Amino acid sequence: MASDTRDRLVRSTSRLLRTQGYGATGLNQIMAEASAPKGSMYFHFPRGKVELAAAAVDLYAERATAHMRRHLAGHDTVRDAVVAIFDAYVEHLDRTDYVEGCAVASVALDAAASHEELADATSQAFRQWVEVLAEALEAEGRTPAEAHGLATLVIAAIEGTVTMAKGMQSTEPVATARDQLRTLLSPG
Amino acid sequence: MASDTRDRLVRSTSRLLRTQGYGATGLNQIMAEASAPKGSMYFHFPRGKVELAAAAVDLYAERATAHMRRHLAGHDTVRDAVVAIFDAYVEHLDRTDYVEGCAVASVALDAAASHEELADATSQAFRQWVEVLAEALEAEGRTPAEAHGLATLVIAAIEGTVTMAKGMQSTEPVATARDQLRTLLSPG
Repeated sequence: MASDTRDRLVRSTSRLLRTQGYGATGLNQIMAEASAPKGSMYFHFPRGKVELAAAAVDLYAERATAHMRRHLAGHDTVRDAVVAIFDAYVEHLDRTDYVEGCAVASVALDAAASHEELADATSQAFRQWVEVLAEALEAEGRTPAEAHGLATLVIAAIEGTVTMAKGMQSTEPVATARDQLRTLLSPG
Repeated sequence: MASDTRDRLVRSTSRLLRTQGYGATGLNQIMAEASAPKGSMYFHFPRGKVELAAAAVDLYAERATAHMRRHLAGHDTVRDAVVAIFDAYVEHLDRTDYVEGCAVASVALDAAASHEELADATSQAFRQWVEVLAEALEAEGRTPAEAHGLATLVIAAIEGTVTMAKGMQSTEPVATARDQLRTLLSPG
């Protein structure tokens, strides 16, 4: 089915973006990973690699937002939800041998400056993540300004430590930042 | 002079890594940016692009370390030094239209997983930055564990917000995280 091929293309691209970013990801590699028939790429994505990468960033961002919302709903405090999100990153990075990071961060660093469509996708992702977390912090009684500040720091700490984990081949920074934020986010 | 050519190659590579990462940076672009004569690349870097990029990451890391040490020496508290470092990033990102980020982060995300030499360079950079900052925090009376934890969070916040700034085409996250850390690092 055509829509299966489209889904496979987007999922494979998202995985490649997490691993190696936009610049290193070629269309042939995407087609091979997705087992996509020749010609299907331009059928589904007439504007080519940029359009496909934007869809992959959107998919990754939506999944991460859903993941964050699930953790926020499943824990009594934002603090516990944030700790669980960091734990999930530790587990994922360990399991993938520090290869699979964040698709949004990779594209933000290597392609957002040169492709407006990708800058729009990464911008929306970061804004949404901060917003979802800030809302939850406000619901715990923080002022909007406090909530926005803390939420920005948490998202930055996730992005920063995932980058450090890939660069250091170690999840120690992720676990260390998690412990700092556990204290910082303690209610009262 | 041969060593001038080598310096220009490394500096141009560092700039390109900050802007677009390793994958998107081609040797022809480096040679053009550096106005380097044909053949000079393999004369100075027999192992090619990987060796040149590792030298560029090392150069960027050394400069950032020196920059951090200068700020730590020039301010009364680690807090004020960290605020000044964030302010310098805000200024630099605004001035370059959110194009020039961190060379270490870019390479950590798009190339460290596939090139051991680059993983070594990014790993050393992150470890050194955390260490320099942790030393300064210990000198202010924090325990080694507190100092390492806070230093990790600060470096992660720098890397994370520079990534967000590139992805959002805005320095708002950098300034917001700076204000959070100003409070967090207040002595006593």
